[in-house]
Amino acid sequence: MNLKECFPIWDKLTSEQQNKILNSAIHRYIKKGTVVYNGLDCTGLLIIKSGQLRAYILSDEGREVTLYRLLDGDICLFSASCIMNSLQFTVNIISEKDSEVWVIPPDVYKNLMQNSIAVANYTNELMASRFSEVMWLIEQIMWKSLDKRLAAFLLEEVSLENTTSLKITHEIIANHLGSAREVVTRMLRYFQNEGIVKLNRGTVEILNLEKLKQLSV
Amino acid sequence: MNLKECFPIWDKLTSEQQNKILNSAIHRYIKKGTVVYNGLDCTGLLIIKSGQLRAYILSDEGREVTLYRLLDGDICLFSASCIMNSLQFTVNIISEKDSEVWVIPPDVYKNLMQNSIAVANYTNELMASRFSEVMWLIEQIMWKSLDKRLAAFLLEEVSLENTTSLKITHEIIANHLGSAREVVTRMLRYFQNEGIVKLNRGTVEILNLEKLKQLSV
Repeated sequence: MNLKECFPIWDKLTSEQQNKILNSAIHRYIKKGTVVYNGLDCTGLLIIKSGQLRAYILSDEGREVTLYRLLDGDICLFSASCIMNSLQFTVNIISEKDSEVWVIPPDVYKNLMQNSIAVANYTNELMASRFSEVMWLIEQIMWKSLDKRLAAFLLEEVSLENTTSLKITHEIIANHLGSAREVVTRMLRYFQNEGIVKLNRGTVEILNLEKLKQLSV
Repeated sequence: MNLKECFPIWDKLTSEQQNKILNSAIHRYIKKGTVVYNGLDCTGLLIIKSGQLRAYILSDEGREVTLYRLLDGDICLFSASCIMNSLQFTVNIISEKDSEVWVIPPDVYKNLMQNSIAVANYTNELMASRFSEVMWLIEQIMWKSLDKRLAAFLLEEVSLENTTSLKITHEIIANHLGSAREVVTRMLRYFQNEGIVKLNRGTVEILNLEKLKQLSV
């Protein structure tokens, strides 16, 4: 995957604008577990070449909730929140796998937005897409019980990791769901009693995907 | 308030674009309690001349949570969700007071977005602003207990209605907060015991604003 493949509107840019992006983009390798963005400075637009990043919010007490994941080809706008005055919230970004990203400096992207209708409208679509994911999350939090959310989360992990033997701690699952570790442990034990998962130290093995799917809806 | 005062970018439009807005805008009076938008069709951009609208989400079981309010001069983008492909969620809009709005047809606005950088970027700011409100709501739901959320809601009502004697039922408060009526009633009784409010049929009277403010943070 190269940089221009990540921009569906690449062909609508002038060659000058294309060069500006290519010349200003900084290529970075990020080790798994690195906090890439914590809202303190305006890092810039992140474009994920490969790997996996997680966007989450953090409470004053250190509790977390995962908002969404960023995968190959995804673009993260909120690490460049200074490009828009009305973006008055902070997301945190951490790498969940070793990743490669390009960083487009905020002033470069802001300048593009102000001079290209295609970029401005593409930014609208990007934001609308993240907004939709967050609205889905609100609905989950408000109307769905934790067992359903836990089931949906485990299914997502199976799909992201491409294995039914998940190396993940109860603590980390709790951080994704914005819940407490004890509550997640209790629910996982219930899943185990139902024959849906098998728990070992640091792993959750999915025994019955079908039952998990039924539970998640 | 007239239509152009609601558009901070009015002066950046061509006179042709200005006329297009003025000629296509439909002026509507809306009675209090009218569902203005329910996600089924693409109504168009709503511009609030006067009154008060409420944007909320609705569960399959009919539970509600208020996302934000729209007041004089505010613009509602999500009633024109068809203008963006990536807007994959539904908000509902209801009038909480008799209101006057202008409706800009979706195709007119979409055309403006595609031909004016100012409109495209203004739309970005609009969406970022609503996004920020929704992120604030998620943080409230996730990290704040119901007593704090109820206190914050009552304070907002005092400010919107400009009175400490609120005509509002426990049912309606529950719908705003995404909670159950019984839970809200119990919490309001606790507030009453603490001397913060006085409950009468259909009204909540705030006796101690200072205590309510302390509670809300």
